[in-house]
Amino acid sequence: MSKLVVQKYGGTSVGTIERIKKVAKRIARMRKEGLDLVVVVSAMAGETDKLLDMANQISSSKKDREMALLLSSGERISSALLSIALNSIGCSAVSMTGRQIGLLTDNSHTKARIKEVDANRAIKALKNGNVVVAAGFQGISEHGEVTTLGRGGSDTSAAAIAVALNAERCEIYTDVNGVYTADPNVVPNAHKMDRISYDEMLEMSSLGAKVLQFRCVEFCKKYDMPLIVKSSLVEDSKGTLICEEDLSMEQPIVSGIMNDKNQAKITIKGVPDQPGIASKFFIGLAEENLSVDMIIQNVSDEGHTDISFTVTKEDINKATKIVQELGKLIEARNISADPNICKVSIVGAGMRSHPGVAAKMFSALSKENINIIMISTSEIRVSCIIEEQYGELAVRVLHKIFNMTNAEKNS
Amino acid sequence: MSKLVVQKYGGTSVGTIERIKKVAKRIARMRKEGLDLVVVVSAMAGETDKLLDMANQISSSKKDREMALLLSSGERISSALLSIALNSIGCSAVSMTGRQIGLLTDNSHTKARIKEVDANRAIKALKNGNVVVAAGFQGISEHGEVTTLGRGGSDTSAAAIAVALNAERCEIYTDVNGVYTADPNVVPNAHKMDRISYDEMLEMSSLGAKVLQFRCVEFCKKYDMPLIVKSSLVEDSKGTLICEEDLSMEQPIVSGIMNDKNQAKITIKGVPDQPGIASKFFIGLAEENLSVDMIIQNVSDEGHTDISFTVTKEDINKATKIVQELGKLIEARNISADPNICKVSIVGAGMRSHPGVAAKMFSALSKENINIIMISTSEIRVSCIIEEQYGELAVRVLHKIFNMTNAEKNS
Repeated sequence: MSKLVVQKYGGTSVGTIERIKKVAKRIARMRKEGLDLVVVVSAMAGETDKLLDMANQISSSKKDREMALLLSSGERISSALLSIALNSIGCSAVSMTGRQIGLLTDNSHTKARIKEVDANRAIKALKNGNVVVAAGFQGISEHGEVTTLGRGGSDTSAAAIAVALNAERCEIYTDVNGVYTADPNVVPNAHKMDRISYDEMLEMSSLGAKVLQFRCVEFCKKYDMPLIVKSSLVEDSKGTLICEEDLSMEQPIVSGIMNDKNQAKITIKGVPDQPGIASKFFIGLAEENLSVDMIIQNVSDEGHTDISFTVTKEDINKATKIVQELGKLIEARNISADPNICKVSIVGAGMRSHPGVAAKMFSALSKENINIIMISTSEIRVSCIIEEQYGELAVRVLHKIFNMTNAEKNS
Repeated sequence: MSKLVVQKYGGTSVGTIERIKKVAKRIARMRKEGLDLVVVVSAMAGETDKLLDMANQISSSKKDREMALLLSSGERISSALLSIALNSIGCSAVSMTGRQIGLLTDNSHTKARIKEVDANRAIKALKNGNVVVAAGFQGISEHGEVTTLGRGGSDTSAAAIAVALNAERCEIYTDVNGVYTADPNVVPNAHKMDRISYDEMLEMSSLGAKVLQFRCVEFCKKYDMPLIVKSSLVEDSKGTLICEEDLSMEQPIVSGIMNDKNQAKITIKGVPDQPGIASKFFIGLAEENLSVDMIIQNVSDEGHTDISFTVTKEDINKATKIVQELGKLIEARNISADPNICKVSIVGAGMRSHPGVAAKMFSALSKENINIIMISTSEIRVSCIIEEQYGELAVRVLHKIFNMTNAEKNS
């Protein structure tokens, strides 16, 4: 076989009939240039929301099994349409459902994890000269149930299929040009990066960068599969390559700056400072499937402590209610919720070899009189919770202070 | 198990979220009354056309394999939504795709014929107390390809599943109250029949009665499965029972009158009257997959003959072109096409024991000065091709002359 590339086109890229035709032309051209191609598609933009909306109109409590069957339809439709478009311009193609592409998952209906990709059918179709157009986001469990991989799961489908087929690379086509140093809407001179390491991209994805799904990056990192994000709307977009860290290169200390607005804070004051009390809250929240991000605990006065933690904005009411109930039992003094916060983070593999990056960030924010409410760090990331109204200012200041505007501009 | 009934709900019955909820309530009530239920659903009204339209926008020549995958999505969506609706009102339900319900077909992608229904999975789900909601219209081939049964195939799905599960009856819910003696829009005092024989219904379906798919009736006749058509929009619709002829009953001579407007006529004049010449035309048409309905041939003058035949209105241009090309080769004198015709038919098992029914029809039409262009008959049917403008008049006249307005009115 010739060089095999797995490409994934997102909902915007196949959002209209015109765009499907355009994507088909692009694929046909690459096929003519000699590439073997497996193309993974999302549902047409808006389609999944339409299906979700219908289900919500029927019931607020829906069985996951039925939701998986429902939501997997969108990708089947777009894969069939793209295959029709390819065949109509003389580029031989076959569409494949999650089952046909052999994407086997565990039994979790709507948040299924991939166990294995049995790519025999795809290999046969490729050998027969076809482009394979696979419905993303979906798989099949060992019980023969239709499963879905969770929102945005088509990226992960593409990564898993690329690994199974030992592809040369996995390309994610989307509506942006690649990964940027910061949101260009906030920082006008933010620039697109040519390359970034898996670890940096993982941090950025977990901080809410929507350009790539966390699990997709994780998959590619695990199997060292080169991953490229580029635009399907621009011709000759070079995109951003996500790969192993290249230690021979001079690296910027900070690669990217993120602002996650989907954060809210709950503070519990006057918690008796006894072992096991604080954990009660977090066990209660976990039982209701509420994810807690940052947690800080301060001794406030003798025998009492204050606890603050963050959840997503949509979870704040549910979380506050649970905490209030538990708070009564342990006679906490006061419980308050604040949805008006955000999390500003700097990410960069270069931090490993440059001490003092966090201090530089804190000082830059303080110079702008931005109060830091909470802090968390990893080896290659520093995140600060600040008041939401200062989020964009903070991103701009940090982008400047870390010389990111001076970095070489890329195509 | 208790009594098992297979029910099919058409596109109008599940056409909106409100209607899906309404159907769910109806099903839940019957379930409470002790019935075991397998429910087969069509795509929501308009959904299949929407998918077809998108495919047509992309290409006029589409691979059947891809079309089957595309068009099967609509039924998956409606089965998932109905199952969600049932579960949300406390009626335990599982949706099943064509593959999961075990509907195995031949390898024809979009006009697949059912080979077998492996109902084990459905039986298990029923035993566990579930209503099974199956996606109609679709199956799976031995090669694991998604297949569809052709337009309106959900009726046939329901019949096949009813037979496989040895159900007590197969109920087809639609937007009309049952089978009528004639189109009530044309004959205001046409009435709904309480029962009709398989054979009569087969004739009426092949004449374009859209209330039931021909293959569904054929399936039920073959396995003697009682078939009921009734309205999902009216409570306590009794519908029409389609079953074996009951010879003990007094039967009306004519049960139903149909007017098929989708007819067009092609006439070839001056064809050399030699063996094998006429067949050339019909072989040529068959090779292009054009169905010919009625054929008449008259000797016109020495050594020459005239041939007329009918096709559907949408096929007339394609058919005329083929006939013109062949006509040149054999030096036919003249070829003309007439799309302004229709086929009026009377159907009734009672004709078998009542001679002179055809003569009575011809005389009634002639009294109204309606010219009969072509005639065809079967044991229980007489059809006349007439000018399209007289179609409705003919139906009204025949409805009266055969005393169908005097028949007992039914609920």
